[in-house]
Amino acid sequence: MSRMKILDAAVATKLKFVTLFSVSYLDRKAKTRDWHMVSRCETPKCVTGNIQQPDATIIVPYHREQQKLVVIKEFRVPVGDYMFGFPAGLIDPGEDMAITAGRELHEETGLELARVYRHSPAVFSSAGITDEAISMVFAEVTGTPSIRNTSDSEDIDIFLMDRKEISELLKRSDIAFGARAWLAMDAFVRMGSSYFTGE
Amino acid sequence: MSRMKILDAAVATKLKFVTLFSVSYLDRKAKTRDWHMVSRCETPKCVTGNIQQPDATIIVPYHREQQKLVVIKEFRVPVGDYMFGFPAGLIDPGEDMAITAGRELHEETGLELARVYRHSPAVFSSAGITDEAISMVFAEVTGTPSIRNTSDSEDIDIFLMDRKEISELLKRSDIAFGARAWLAMDAFVRMGSSYFTGE
Repeated sequence: MSRMKILDAAVATKLKFVTLFSVSYLDRKAKTRDWHMVSRCETPKCVTGNIQQPDATIIVPYHREQQKLVVIKEFRVPVGDYMFGFPAGLIDPGEDMAITAGRELHEETGLELARVYRHSPAVFSSAGITDEAISMVFAEVTGTPSIRNTSDSEDIDIFLMDRKEISELLKRSDIAFGARAWLAMDAFVRMGSSYFTGE
Repeated sequence: MSRMKILDAAVATKLKFVTLFSVSYLDRKAKTRDWHMVSRCETPKCVTGNIQQPDATIIVPYHREQQKLVVIKEFRVPVGDYMFGFPAGLIDPGEDMAITAGRELHEETGLELARVYRHSPAVFSSAGITDEAISMVFAEVTGTPSIRNTSDSEDIDIFLMDRKEISELLKRSDIAFGARAWLAMDAFVRMGSSYFTGE
């Protein structure tokens, strides 16, 4: 048995924000196989090898003054419904992820990023289907929520919720959650604010 | 401003395991726009409305006897490299998620599922790009790891790691992680095994 190896990635379909690729690779018996995946990049990461750089940030915004977690309820087209999650945004080329986080936080919630407590490395959203990698940014935020900066294709409500309110939210079966947001909310419920700060 | 609304999903490209869709929707000013996404389903969830049913499970396997978390290092084609994460698998139609979890756990690690401590609802992997939803299954596992049941297109190493070893693993910058796995490993490091059991 040898190790697996990427041979080539062919564009199946290129659309504006996403490209579907057919990646050929050698399996452990050196047989050529295909894997289908989507990417936000021109060339997928399995070819470029650029797997340390996140495409996007997801901000876990802790409003320390109010001792509340900031949660957004946002219409997501692929879900066809509202989903509870956190502010997130694509990192512009060369941009520091704290800058992206601050900008997206402000655009989506009107809040200000005060400081980054800690962040994850580039971690893969769902490595079976996409090479998309994000960084989770645990941050202290300040200010008053406002949705005046959202665009027409964004439909967002903002909630500031304490540990007990998040616990109640997670018990509801009639609403949808993002996976990473669910995991972070669940950890907050079990651990309190030390989860964000790392203290 | 009205609420956003899905109009229709057109197949852009259909491949064996994934379909690329162009979804038309009305934005908050009732302007028609398009969103591009991939789905594992024939018809995406934004059209069927079937958002409570997960496509797949991700098992967070706690080997209680050894007091260790089971982590797999697996070659992922979209990443083009090995990635640290957890066993996972697609749920067959009508299948109970504990059955899927037990089967995939056994196929990928040789271990047995002893019991499910707790699980998430269907949560969305990355709702900007796909309607894929998974359930996180926190489970007690038993037995001895073995990779004899993996297929040629799977290249997997299995590690049983205690809290301190996971903490060291997360500090490494030369390896890739799945996002959901990173979040669960990070919570384990901060909280210990009560994270899995919910006790």
